[in-house]
This record gives sequence, structure tokens and C-alpha cells, in this order.
Amino acid sequence: MIKVAPSILSADFANLQRDVQLAEKAGADSIHIDVMDGQFVPNLSFGMKTVADLRPVTSLTLDCHLMIVEPEHFVEQFAKAGADLIGVHVESTRHIYHVLQLIKQAGAKAEVVVNPGTPLSMISEVLPLVDQVLIMTVNPGFGGQHFLEPMPAKIKALAAIKQEHGYDFDIQVDGGINATTVKQCYDAGATVAVAGSFVFDSSDPAARIQDIKVATN
Amino acid sequence: MIKVAPSILSADFANLQRDVQLAEKAGADSIHIDVMDGQFVPNLSFGMKTVADLRPVTSLTLDCHLMIVEPEHFVEQFAKAGADLIGVHVESTRHIYHVLQLIKQAGAKAEVVVNPGTPLSMISEVLPLVDQVLIMTVNPGFGGQHFLEPMPAKIKALAAIKQEHGYDFDIQVDGGINATTVKQCYDAGATVAVAGSFVFDSSDPAARIQDIKVATN
Amino acid sequence: MIKVAPSILSADFANLQRDVQLAEKAGADSIHIDVMDGQFVPNLSFGMKTVADLRPVTSLTLDCHLMIVEPEHFVEQFAKAGADLIGVHVESTRHIYHVLQLIKQAGAKAEVVVNPGTPLSMISEVLPLVDQVLIMTVNPGFGGQHFLEPMPAKIKALAAIKQEHGYDFDIQVDGGINATTVKQCYDAGATVAVAGSFVFDSSDPAARIQDIKVATN
Amino acid sequence: MIKVAPSILSADFANLQRDVQLAEKAGADSIHIDVMDGQFVPNLSFGMKTVADLRPVTSLTLDCHLMIVEPEHFVEQFAKAGADLIGVHVESTRHIYHVLQLIKQAGAKAEVVVNPGTPLSMISEVLPLVDQVLIMTVNPGFGGQHFLEPMPAKIKALAAIKQEHGYDFDIQVDGGINATTVKQCYDAGATVAVAGSFVFDSSDPAARIQDIKVATN
Amino acid sequence: MIKVAPSILSADFANLQRDVQLAEKAGADSIHIDVMDGQFVPNLSFGMKTVADLRPVTSLTLDCHLMIVEPEHFVEQFAKAGADLIGVHVESTRHIYHVLQLIKQAGAKAEVVVNPGTPLSMISEVLPLVDQVLIMTVNPGFGGQHFLEPMPAKIKALAAIKQEHGYDFDIQVDGGINATTVKQCYDAGATVAVAGSFVFDSSDPAARIQDIKVATN
Amino acid sequence: MIKVAPSILSADFANLQRDVQLAEKAGADSIHIDVMDGQFVPNLSFGMKTVADLRPVTSLTLDCHLMIVEPEHFVEQFAKAGADLIGVHVESTRHIYHVLQLIKQAGAKAEVVVNPGTPLSMISEVLPLVDQVLIMTVNPGFGGQHFLEPMPAKIKALAAIKQEHGYDFDIQVDGGINATTVKQCYDAGATVAVAGSFVFDSSDPAARIQDIKVATN
Repeated sequence: MIKVAPSILSADFANLQRDVQLAEKAGADSIHIDVMDGQFVPNLSFGMKTVADLRPVTSLTLDCHLMIVEPEHFVEQFAKAGADLIGVHVESTRHIYHVLQLIKQAGAKAEVVVNPGTPLSMISEVLPLVDQVLIMTVNPGFGGQHFLEPMPAKIKALAAIKQEHGYDFDIQVDGGINATTVKQCYDAGATVAVAGSFVFDSSDPAARIQDIKVATN
Repeated sequence: MIKVAPSILSADFANLQRDVQLAEKAGADSIHIDVMDGQFVPNLSFGMKTVADLRPVTSLTLDCHLMIVEPEHFVEQFAKAGADLIGVHVESTRHIYHVLQLIKQAGAKAEVVVNPGTPLSMISEVLPLVDQVLIMTVNPGFGGQHFLEPMPAKIKALAAIKQEHGYDFDIQVDGGINATTVKQCYDAGATVAVAGSFVFDSSDPAARIQDIKVATN
Repeated sequence: MIKVAPSILSADFANLQRDVQLAEKAGADSIHIDVMDGQFVPNLSFGMKTVADLRPVTSLTLDCHLMIVEPEHFVEQFAKAGADLIGVHVESTRHIYHVLQLIKQAGAKAEVVVNPGTPLSMISEVLPLVDQVLIMTVNPGFGGQHFLEPMPAKIKALAAIKQEHGYDFDIQVDGGINATTVKQCYDAGATVAVAGSFVFDSSDPAARIQDIKVATN
Repeated sequence: MIKVAPSILSADFANLQRDVQLAEKAGADSIHIDVMDGQFVPNLSFGMKTVADLRPVTSLTLDCHLMIVEPEHFVEQFAKAGADLIGVHVESTRHIYHVLQLIKQAGAKAEVVVNPGTPLSMISEVLPLVDQVLIMTVNPGFGGQHFLEPMPAKIKALAAIKQEHGYDFDIQVDGGINATTVKQCYDAGATVAVAGSFVFDSSDPAARIQDIKVATN
Repeated sequence: MIKVAPSILSADFANLQRDVQLAEKAGADSIHIDVMDGQFVPNLSFGMKTVADLRPVTSLTLDCHLMIVEPEHFVEQFAKAGADLIGVHVESTRHIYHVLQLIKQAGAKAEVVVNPGTPLSMISEVLPLVDQVLIMTVNPGFGGQHFLEPMPAKIKALAAIKQEHGYDFDIQVDGGINATTVKQCYDAGATVAVAGSFVFDSSDPAARIQDIKVATN
Repeated sequence: MIKVAPSILSADFANLQRDVQLAEKAGADSIHIDVMDGQFVPNLSFGMKTVADLRPVTSLTLDCHLMIVEPEHFVEQFAKAGADLIGVHVESTRHIYHVLQLIKQAGAKAEVVVNPGTPLSMISEVLPLVDQVLIMTVNPGFGGQHFLEPMPAKIKALAAIKQEHGYDFDIQVDGGINATTVKQCYDAGATVAVAGSFVFDSSDPAARIQDIKVATN
């Protein structure tokens, strides 16, 4: 069964405590926090204080996906704010190894993220360092995106590398995830699924979280 | 009596609806929304969805202070999200006249903002266009700042320009505002005061809003 | 009578020789070349080779208005390509004095350009150096702009500075110029008018050039 | 026989209609339009209006090679201007998958371009999306470049990938192409050749286009 | 008599201790350290370690003139390395007030620097904060520059502002300083002169320092 | 036995001639010059004049490792200043092939550098051009870094590629090098070792250079 990380990007920003606690009760495995700066992606969401203010209201893992330029300047602040896991795009920095080290030194788990057009070869040197790899299954930060059909093959290729080297990172997927697409990702090797609008744009978010779990059971 | 605009930057990001409604009941005249992108200032707060999700929960003016680079790409989205007034820093764009026009064409009120080190001469050409001028009384985006003592003189100079030309913009102040400093600003000509930690870091935010009003009565 | 500089930005890019020669025959005083790089303004027009290829087909002054970032890297190439006058925005460089010196050292006339929101005080130090000042009467690079009514007052203020110091630069205006608006600019002190769509989007460009001249006779 | 795409970068910018029609009559298969912004490469050529003004004068494919930063902001304008095929450098964007999708959604064919120093592994994820791959055979935007001898091996490697996966994209080559070098590229698997100075710096452009065709017959 | 600050930019970088001590013995009042990053100006000189390694070898004031982008990230490191005075260009940051505060909080004296094309009005808000104003008398970072004749008038204007407000900052000049030009600056109100090649490109640097002093006696 | 390149980044910047000559006498094979601009890495060291002033004081190879953005603008100046070998990071430019060509055309040897997180696949296209590859064994420009244990495997992989293709470039390592780590690198295929603090922070730099040589004998 895949782990489910509801993304609060689709929650009510005026009542995040309520929505996060709803997700927790419904069986979410972690909370996914999409940090966007309007530069790496053309959208601006929230930052470290959102993490800090959510920290006391849930016992779930806070998983921060940084879609920002020069994340090296900010990862320590996110860790200090209470992030359990911090993800950085390989496309966002010239110093990916260093940023991942900074995250770990700050006491958080480290994740590397790849955009749909970025090959897995770009992250080969940092796979030994990471606790999680996030395979984007849509282009981040742009509206109206659909799940990209070629991505399960990419997940499968990563799962093969993982097995070959004996790595033990999680493989997370993000973008266009619903009960159908999550199955393809899970079968290919994904272990954690981010679900945004599928969960929070529903009248019954709890049911949607269960739908994803059932689909991958 | 000065108008009071509590800044939600100091509110609980997990419960913004609650804090905004508390401020409204306590007599706030508008809600100040500090948008920061981690580039114009070294802090990342929130963006357009926060505005959109706060829009239905209050009837107060939503006053968005954009501390972002290239605001021309974003002002229309903020207006669409429900911002009533949008402020842009003269230091953040090469096209300040154009951005202010965009804001007005999008149906919002337009504000120009000046950092403490920026002279008033830099905004002389756009004063006829704006509904409000924001004089920063601390340096934006950096922690642990105190009210800058020379700023009331700057407010006074702006008030003189305003009177001389018959302009009718509001003069807002932001940074280090409390019951003491607000009096200096009000006496110098400020008409709206942003109050952040003074209000929300207090055990009685409503009382703090009244303190500001009383101080300028 | 004002001098007229038709802007080839509104001409047929597939037949610039034809349109430039038409303008020359119709009494144009110079040819205005709007260089845009997609960065300083959100439009991309043409560069130095356009200047080089127009150089042999007209005896008119080629007046290049650079709307590009870091013009210091390019002014010498424009001079070498045959530009007689090169204009740079004060908003586009930290080294405006240096860029204007480079232009003159390269044998061309030097122009400083100000956006509508930029105060004249920003160019006070370079006025002794320049052969021409360009007052933008619309925001450059954005479509659907109308002549900005406050600009004649700015021209008048510049004309006063010019007279006070005994400067002999030309004052050029650009944006929304037609037979009506050019009169306001001329009366305020403008000596050269750029005309784009008013000339080339007409069925009789030559007549339009004359209209401008007649209006300021 | 290889398809020939004369590059108007070497044509007369004052008479593009004439030169494009000359190329069409001489048997050109498409027109190559080198868009340069002075930032991605240190040269500034032309933009969307050049495409728009050439669109009505030829029935050939207009093939736009964008050497610009952040092409995501511009591809829709190029498609609207009449570009049939739009190429973007993998080095120019963090969102290559997204840009290629935007091009296709805008109704144009999509091309990915690689600089000489960029490995083919960098484009592996987007090969299923593209209609054409452009292998630069010189460094773009810098003058006085010669055909790079190692490039046919790169073309061959790409052709092998193409065959292995059953892709049907065209392989275009650009830079230093003449009757000799085009043969090497064609033999390695190239299907379209851009020819600039070899064609337009000649006294008989039509003959030069034929020379390329004959060489690859 | 003007104070003299020899600039080590013209010294022997392989033997800075020797040259600094030579300057000290010759009567220099402080050592001027031109920090250049290749971005704010197109030259790259040295950074904080040069300051740290010179700190123990001289008792003179180390006066660091930062020609770098975003000096806010570096001023504390320069203070810690031993800089007594740190100067930042108003053109190099959006947060000039903040940077000057940072310098003072770090225990150093604060200086604001203006390029030749930058008007004094741009620094009006920060004059109460600074210990020194540096008027550039050439364009910084570009080779082969001559003393700019209009600069003494700018110095005079600053001296008038200084007197009018009762400020007590020093006025430093930098660029093209020799025994002739220093006299013009001194007469206009300059109190400190930077001398680079005039001192260190001489066979008798000590004599050159005296020449400047004698010229302003 | 490995060649040793002491890095003057750890030398006394006030007495570089002395330290360089000390290294030369102690058997150093070349002098490593770490050029940092505060942008590519968050440290600022020195530039071309340091090279020029060291050129006459040593007969050793001056090996310049450029940690700067847009190295294409500077490589010719470094060659002219006397650099024998110039290294550029593949992460620092979109035009790596071009920059390496520029270096060779300027008469210097060309080196490509890879950060720890950058895969070797990123430099596959330029290996035929280079005289040396620099494998960073720490993250450049950040303090307090330790030798990264996975790097010898990367060196080994590069050595295998080198042998397979018959390339004859040197393999240099830089970061955390001491008598222990250098052995691992040498055994993996490194041919040149940069040593900074291990050499110059010692009371007997000459002995340390010998330690490295002995360890790889």
C-alpha cells in the first residue's frame, strides 16, 4: 500500500490547521508542503512560517518540497521551523550535493526532486545521500496540468537503480495523482504519493485518501 | 484618528481566518498582507491563494504589500484573487508607472512603497497615480528591526508634497509601529498604520488595536 | 517645426528598405530604431544587423533606442553597425555615465532615456554629456499604450532645466504620438518626435509625417 | 537527400521578403529563423514580428530557433506569429518538458536544441515529445565559428537512439554547414541542414542550396 | 591638508604587506581596499581574506570599498576580517539603509558610494547614517579612465548639504587623483583622497603621497 | 607519484610571493589559484591581477580554477595575465564547449571542473577537448568541508572512461586532501592533487608537500 501525503497547496489557506488535522484523522501518512517563490515556478505559495505554525498542530511528518531558486539560503530555516523532510530540485542549484548535506546537518531528511524533462542521470551522484526522490509527474507550478503518461517508466527506471545499488530511499510522486494514476506509479515502484486537488477539492477528503490506499492495496 | 491595518505576517498562519476575523471585530480598518518572495527580501511568506482564501471571510479591505521582484508579472493575479489595494516597491521594478497602471486597470487601488533609504524624489512622477503611499519605517523582510527615528520627518515631507499638489492619497506606515511610534507618524501626516507583532504577539490583540486608535485620537 | 523620426517598429520587417526609403522621401528627419531584448521590456525586436543592413539604404540619421539590459556590452557594436545616435535607459544600467561615454568614444551621439515613472532628478548628472534626452510618453515595450497626459509637464520641466543650464540637447518624445499629442509635446519644448503606428499603420505614411510637421508649424 | 533550411540570419535584414522568396524559388525546404536575445547568446537578431511579417510572403515552413532565456514566456507569441516549428535549448530553461508542451498546445511542432557541450543524455526524457532535434554543430551566437569535427559522431549516436526507440523526429544540424560538412552530417543521420552564410553570402544562393542537395543525393 | 588613502589595487598583489607598510611609512592616513566581484564592475580583485591578512601588518585604518552586487551578504564578513570602514554603492542594493545599519552594527564605520552618473538626491535619506561619502571621480572598474571634470561641482554640492544639515561625514574622492586633480577636489570640500596608480605606479610612492599632501596644504 | 598543486587560497594573501616561492622550493609541481567571485560560490578571493603579479615570481605552472559565473567573459584576461591552465565549472556556463575553446585559443591549457553532485555524463562531450578534469572532492567555496568519501569511485569511473577512449588528460582532485585522502584518489586514478590548508596551515609546508608525494609513491 502506498503512503499518502496530502498537499496543502489545495487546502484552505485560511484554515490550514483544520485541513491538516482532517487529513491526519483520515489516515494521511505525512503532510506535503509545496513552497513556491514565484521565480523557480510562476506561483507563490508560502514559506517557513507556515511550517512553523503547522508544526504544533500535527504529529505527521512535514514534508517540504522547495520550488525556489537558491534553496541553499533557506533549507536551514525550514529545518528549524519544523520540517522533517526537505526536498530540493536538482534544477534549482549548482550545488545540489551541498544543499542535501545542509539539510541532513540541520537534522531533516533530504530529498532530491526532478522535473519531468530532467533525466535520472542528473541525480546519480546524490542518490547515496537522499532519503527520498521525488519524481514530478506534472510540470510544477503551472496550472491545469495532467499526469504525464511517460512518468511511470521513469519511476520504474529509478526503482531498478535503487534495487541495483541497494539504496533504501522512498520514491515519491507528485502531480495529477488520483486513484487511477497512483496505481501506475505504485506498480512502477513509487512508495509515497502526493495528492492535492484530488483530496482537498473533494467534498470528502478522507474518502479520497482511502481511495488511493485501496487502489494500491 | 489613524486607520489601523493589522498585518497577518504576525498572525497564526494555520488559522488565518480566525485571526483576521478577530482583527475585524476589534475594529481594524483593513487587513495588511505582506507578500514576500525570498528574493526582494530574504523571507518567504505567502501569495495570491492566501488572498483568495481570505477574501470570503472578511468584509475588510485586503491591502497587499508586494515585496517581490518583477511585480508586473503578478499584480493582475492578486487583483483577481480579491486584493482591494496592491502596493509595489519603487525599488522592485524598472517600470513603476506601468505596474501602477496595471493595478488600476485590474480594478484595485494602487500603492507605491519606498524603503527607508529611498528618497521621495524617486516617486515624484507616480504620486498623481496612487491611492496610497507606504513609507517603510523599518527595513522590510529583515528580523529584529526597530522603528527608524528619522522616518517621521520623511512622512512630514511627503505630507507637505501632498498638500502642495492637492493629492488625496493615504499615507501608510509600516514597521515598528506601537502606541508610541504611531503617534509620531500620525502627527507627521500618516493616515494608516500597519501593526504586526504589536497586535498579534499580544495576549489581547483587540486591546492593542484600540491602543493605537486612542494614541492618535 | 518638430523633427520627425518614424519608428520602424511599426514598419514591415520583411521590407525595411522599402519603408525606410518611403519615410525618407516623405520628409522624415531621422529613422528611429527600437531595439528590444525581451528582458528590459517583454518584446523582442531586432539588433545590430538591422542597423548595419539599413545603413547603406538611407542617408538619414539612424537613431537607436536601446531597450536592453546591460547596454554597456552592446553600444560599441551598434556604433560600428552605423548608428548615428544611441539611446540608453537610465533604468537599464548601474553605470549610465560610463555607457554614455562609451557611445561618444565610439563616435555616435549619446542619448539618455527615462521611463514615465522615472524622475528627471535621476539624470541630472548626465545632462551635460548628452546630445538628446528621450522622454517616454508611454511605457516602452507593452502593447496598447496611450499617450500619458502628465508627460508634457515633464517635458516642460526638462526644457526649463535645459534653458537654465544652457544645455543644447534635443528633447525627443516617443509613444502615442499623433498630430494632436505632438502639439502638446512641441509646445512644452520637445524638438524631435518619434512616430510609429501613426505613420506606418496608415495607408499614406507620407501624409502622416506631414501632419505632424504641420501641427507643429 | 537532406532537406535544406536557409537561415535568414545571413540574409539582408532590410529585404527579408526578397531573400526568403529567393530561397523558396531555389528549392529551400523551410526557412530557419535564428532568434537571439543578447542574453542566452551575445547577439541580438529579431523576434516575433519578423516571423509575423514573413508569414504571408512564403508558403515554406517557418522554423524558429529560439536562443533566448526563459523561452516559456515567448513560445506562444511565436506560434501565434506564424511559426510552424519552434525550437528551444535545453540549456535555456528549467522546465524543458513544459516548454515543449506549450509549443505543441499552441499548434506548432516542437524542437529541442543541444549546444555542442551538452550531452544527449540531457534530452532523453523529452525525445518522445519532439518533432525535431537540433544538434548545434558550432557554438551558437558567437562569430567566426567552424564546424565542429566531433559532431557527426553525436548525430550518429542520436540516430541510433532514434532507431532503437522507433522515434520519428527529424535531426537538424546548424553551424558551419557547406557541401562538405553536410555530407558528414547526412551520412551520420541528419535529415535537415541549416545553411546560413554558405547560401546568402554567395553570389548565387540558389546554386548553393542545390550544392547541398547534390552532396547528399 | 587632505588625508591620503593609497589604493592597493595598484600595488603588487604578490607583496601587499610590503607595499602597505611602505605606504604607512610614507605618511598614508589609511589603506583603501577596492573589492570587485566581476559582476558589479567587470573586474575581480580580492575579498575578505585580503583584509584579514593585511589587518596584522598595519595600524592604519583599512577602508574597504565594495564594488559587489548584494553587499548585504558580505559586510559582516568584511567587518570581522578587520575592516574599519566599509563602503557600499547605492546602485548595488535595494536596501541601502539596511546595509549601512549592518555595517555599523558590525562595529565598522559606514560609507555610501555614488557612481559619477548617480545624483546626490539618491543618497539624501542615508546621509545622517554615514561616516563617509565616496564620490567616484571616474567610473569604477573600467580601465583607462580619466578624472571627470564635472565631479568637483558635485563635491561642492555635497559639501553644501553637509554644512546645511550639520553632518560630519568625511568626503572621499576616488579615481584619476593626482597632485593637480586632488587640489580641485580639496577646494570643493573633499577631505580624503584615494590614490592608486599615481602612488604605486611611481618609482617613489612615498614622494607621491607627499605631493598630494603638499598640493592641498 | 602524484603531482602536487598547493592552493594559495590557504597562503598569506599579504605575502603571496614568499609563499609561492616556498612552495616551489619544496617541490610543488604547480600553483593552484582559486578564483571566487562571491556569486558562483559564497566567497570572494582574487582575480586576474593576482595571476599577473605572481607570474614573474615563479616558473611553476599557474593553474587557475575559476569559481565564477559566466566565465566566458574572463578567460581571455586570465590567459593574458599568465595563467598556464584555466579551469571552468560545467555548472557555471551554458556554453562549456565554447569556453574551453576560448581558453585554448588564448594559448592556455583547458580544464573542466565538476562539483560533487554533478555526474560525469555532463562532461562527456568535452572530454576530447580538455587537458585536465578537476573532480571536486568537497563542495567548493563553503567552509568546514570534509573530503567526500564517494569521490574516489567517481575518479575511478573517470579513469575508466579516459582509458577506454584513449584520452590523455590529467585528473586533478581538490578538497580535503591530506596524506591519507590523496592515497585513495591516486589509487583511483588521480594524477594531480590540490592541497590547501594541509600545506599552508602547517608550520612546515615543505614537509607537507613531501608527505603527499611519499604517500603516493
